[in-house]
Amino acid sequence: MIRFAIIGHVARTSSDFSLTDLPGGAGRMDLLCRCVSASLFLSHGIRKNTLCYLILLGEPDAPKTILFDGSRVHHLSPDERNIASHIQKALRIPCGAIFRESGQGITVRRGGLEKLLAEYRFCVLDEGGRDIRREDTLAGCENYLLSDHGNFTPDEADAIAGAACIPLSLGPRVLHADHAIVLVHNERDRAEVLFG
Amino acid sequence: MIRFAIIGHVARTSSDFSLTDLPGGAGRMDLLCRCVSASLFLSHGIRKNTLCYLILLGEPDAPKTILFDGSRVHHLSPDERNIASHIQKALRIPCGAIFRESGQGITVRRGGLEKLLAEYRFCVLDEGGRDIRREDTLAGCENYLLSDHGNFTPDEADAIAGAACIPLSLGPRVLHADHAIVLVHNERDRAEVLFG
Repeated sequence: MIRFAIIGHVARTSSDFSLTDLPGGAGRMDLLCRCVSASLFLSHGIRKNTLCYLILLGEPDAPKTILFDGSRVHHLSPDERNIASHIQKALRIPCGAIFRESGQGITVRRGGLEKLLAEYRFCVLDEGGRDIRREDTLAGCENYLLSDHGNFTPDEADAIAGAACIPLSLGPRVLHADHAIVLVHNERDRAEVLFG
Repeated sequence: MIRFAIIGHVARTSSDFSLTDLPGGAGRMDLLCRCVSASLFLSHGIRKNTLCYLILLGEPDAPKTILFDGSRVHHLSPDERNIASHIQKALRIPCGAIFRESGQGITVRRGGLEKLLAEYRFCVLDEGGRDIRREDTLAGCENYLLSDHGNFTPDEADAIAGAACIPLSLGPRVLHADHAIVLVHNERDRAEVLFG
């Protein structure tokens, strides 16, 4: 199973945002929606081996984590508005310590980065890291952590360092998180064909 | 200058679509918007050396081509709704044989694929093509042609063959057009660093 986790530092944690203002009122939810799309969608299919975690840290009820499970989602389209409507639905249900389903393949729980880092070991996408194209870089690395339009905060950077996340670089430019996910998938797709 | 051209086979050619239904009423305009975003946006900047052509072939007034010029666009955000609003504005102005400006860095003209193929030589992204990672594949190839969610039509395939477009492959999976653009940019970014 491949996991992508994206931190949305200002992403709204209640359902009271408008689907017509995802970048503003919803706290750059447009970017998080594109990350879900990049994580799960092939041209005519879904990546069933992929999970996408959105860590929402905006007002008024942070932290919450929404999980999209590629093996189970249904009626999900790759456009921002559709994905945002599923996020809105997830933010409408009561939120506890354990993931609870708001729609097929979509679940939500209370908690953020530290909880996830305690469960899985992540690689962190970072311009200063080891080039993902170098041999063996992908071996043993199935979980990838990214930040939204902002950098990791000092507290997050400490948690990441404490969890011994491996830093990986994707190339010479600083890219949007959703574009970074596309590159990770491509690298894995190629490795899968080469090495089975 | 790098050019991406994307054919939108059902993309609406008048401005009378709703920004709340880009996949349906607007004819998969959501995908074309993501292609503009993938062509032009870095994490905190614009790719000034890149042009993105949307070839719109849907009802009621096809063909039209909208051009986004990375060196000149302003007030463009990477979210689908914002980009779609600029497309709508371009579809509102009278459309002639020559590109005419509807907003800063955004122009529109009458005409489609054949007109563009007569002006520039394109590589076409195609699963059966030569792997973009092979040495020299990028040399002399600065223009990239893609299709939306549908395949090229037989007429388009003939025009592409007639123009001697070079087929390029990006990897083992069939991807969304916007994801393909991300991969091309990454390949070029890496080559630029290696070879200046």
